[in-house]
Amino acid sequence: MKAIVLGICPEAVIVDVTHEVAKFDIRMGAYILTSAAPYFPKGTIHVAVVDPGVGSARRSLIVHTNNGVLVGPDNGVLALAANKERIVSVREITNSKYMLPQVSGTFHGRDIFAPTAAHLANGVQLDDFGAEIRDMVKPEFSEVKLSSDKTTGEVLYVDGFGNIVTNLSQETIAGYKAGNSINVSINRRRIEIKLGKTYADAQPNESLILMGSQGYVEITKNQGNAFQEFKAKPGDKVTLSLGS
Amino acid sequence: MKAIVLGICPEAVIVDVTHEVAKFDIRMGAYILTSAAPYFPKGTIHVAVVDPGVGSARRSLIVHTNNGVLVGPDNGVLALAANKERIVSVREITNSKYMLPQVSGTFHGRDIFAPTAAHLANGVQLDDFGAEIRDMVKPEFSEVKLSSDKTTGEVLYVDGFGNIVTNLSQETIAGYKAGNSINVSINRRRIEIKLGKTYADAQPNESLILMGSQGYVEITKNQGNAFQEFKAKPGDKVTLSLGS
Amino acid sequence: MKAIVLGICPEAVIVDVTHEVAKFDIRMGAYILTSAAPYFPKGTIHVAVVDPGVGSARRSLIVHTNNGVLVGPDNGVLALAANKERIVSVREITNSKYMLPQVSGTFHGRDIFAPTAAHLANGVQLDDFGAEIRDMVKPEFSEVKLSSDKTTGEVLYVDGFGNIVTNLSQETIAGYKAGNSINVSINRRRIEIKLGKTYADAQPNESLILMGSQGYVEITKNQGNAFQEFKAKPGDKVTLSLGS
Repeated sequence: MKAIVLGICPEAVIVDVTHEVAKFDIRMGAYILTSAAPYFPKGTIHVAVVDPGVGSARRSLIVHTNNGVLVGPDNGVLALAANKERIVSVREITNSKYMLPQVSGTFHGRDIFAPTAAHLANGVQLDDFGAEIRDMVKPEFSEVKLSSDKTTGEVLYVDGFGNIVTNLSQETIAGYKAGNSINVSINRRRIEIKLGKTYADAQPNESLILMGSQGYVEITKNQGNAFQEFKAKPGDKVTLSLGS
Repeated sequence: MKAIVLGICPEAVIVDVTHEVAKFDIRMGAYILTSAAPYFPKGTIHVAVVDPGVGSARRSLIVHTNNGVLVGPDNGVLALAANKERIVSVREITNSKYMLPQVSGTFHGRDIFAPTAAHLANGVQLDDFGAEIRDMVKPEFSEVKLSSDKTTGEVLYVDGFGNIVTNLSQETIAGYKAGNSINVSINRRRIEIKLGKTYADAQPNESLILMGSQGYVEITKNQGNAFQEFKAKPGDKVTLSLGS
Repeated sequence: MKAIVLGICPEAVIVDVTHEVAKFDIRMGAYILTSAAPYFPKGTIHVAVVDPGVGSARRSLIVHTNNGVLVGPDNGVLALAANKERIVSVREITNSKYMLPQVSGTFHGRDIFAPTAAHLANGVQLDDFGAEIRDMVKPEFSEVKLSSDKTTGEVLYVDGFGNIVTNLSQETIAGYKAGNSINVSINRRRIEIKLGKTYADAQPNESLILMGSQGYVEITKNQGNAFQEFKAKPGDKVTLSLGS
């Protein structure tokens, strides 16, 4: 993919964000993209390829936001990063002029997404790639349910320290204040946990809810491993409600 | 290695292809190099170091092809990529002027190959590095045997999806047509498999032979794992013959 | 981190040395930094973040040496690389003007160290970042004890080949000559091993002490695995004395 980009746009500056996304794990790819993208300079072109449906009818997308451009398959991998910005347009990539001459059935990262990104970097206009669409795939992990007494989302990611990252953003927990006791339910396990601001707000090995450095609510343990308490895995439902 | 390159040629654009080649696995290194190299711009200098014989008498090479330059040890790691192109010259790197002042016995990537690549990028002429040789090492995995009724090669690589990549190129199977039934033997296991064009030519979990996106014959299963059928590992002989 | 650097200093050339340092393993990070740093061009800015104490009171440092600049937490991760050079100054980073507007409690690599490095690359003067300090943390793994009959250090790293890398530099073993028989003690296991110059100075599977390519004494086995002999792990004490 990097070879293709440099062949089309030799002055491109390419940054590897990660090659460690688990196979087929669209949710994890979406989480890493949305964690990294906001820190890049305005106008950056982001390519994200986690693509179990490659070769099927799933569409190839360019999402233009007020902050930059996202390129990848229409399977949800772009959804969290897109949601953080104001979306200007979503287009399906259909113009074969901007793909490799031979599009394989197995590697659209190389054959479609990398050349698209490079032609975008060269200044090719968005409407040259294909028409706008209005029904971009909305994955379940991009949805949060708010009711009068509960906030329900899901686990996006469990990091190497055992911190459980949910898909709940700052606004979705605006009803809770630091110091509140929160009932957290995951996997039929329910624990009352304090809402804090930094790890230091908990005693060693005490559980804590806080806003993680990526902008999502995390369930964590100061110097401990929250995963071992909840055995939470990506996709598990998470429900928060005000505690005692 | 990247530090050395940038010290000698500060404007070099360095692309990491992979650092995931298994230790000492020359065959895997050769496969990854030949998969990536054709996509880079003409004139690219490729450095590949999988080097179990570092410090021994094995030679250090520059292979000049019609498409670019390959730099690495003379142990076969450059062979598959070189075979895909027209070779213009093969030289042994002997001029210590283009090596680090202290050549260690354990890390020629840093001490010989990286500085060679950087000096090449700076425009140093090929014949300054050393004399031409005619007997570059030809590893067994670069050989295919064709007879009137059989095609014999070997397994290059088993990917993370269980696809079995062989060293058989398009030309070596020119005698077979899409839709043909092919007898495939690996590890004394023999199965009749259809030759297809894309994964979708097989039913879910049906085996299929096709040209992979890297230009080699692959034995695959639609949404399944061919490795589990054949237990094939790199180096295993693969024989194809026309089936019923 | 790379996004932040490029946002502040778009023409920065960023080189990934490694992302494979084990979690919280300051010693391993220090070893990899000191292995790589001397090969970079003079004036290079190195950022190293292995940071178990992030969010606590541990300081953030800029170490200016005669060869370049080291940026990272004051926990020892910069110590081995700093020791190899002449230190010109050590400063604590305190000027929030050169940090991200929101400094998280969990990711100073992104919020403090990356922007510091980028502003340094842009030419911001060292004394703008904060005041000089004189008491940079000195980790135990940077210390070697020399007595009349013994040299005592510790294991820095065990590489993937089973080579045991110690923190003993060339000068600390100046009293021994190639060919000497050395008593090596690790983990109450004591073996007499020959001091050699290259792997080839030992018979296959024979143990050997030599200067590794990174400038530290290594205990190795020609084509074998020294780790399996000693079961040495990073932090284990290593004592050398002249043998029979």
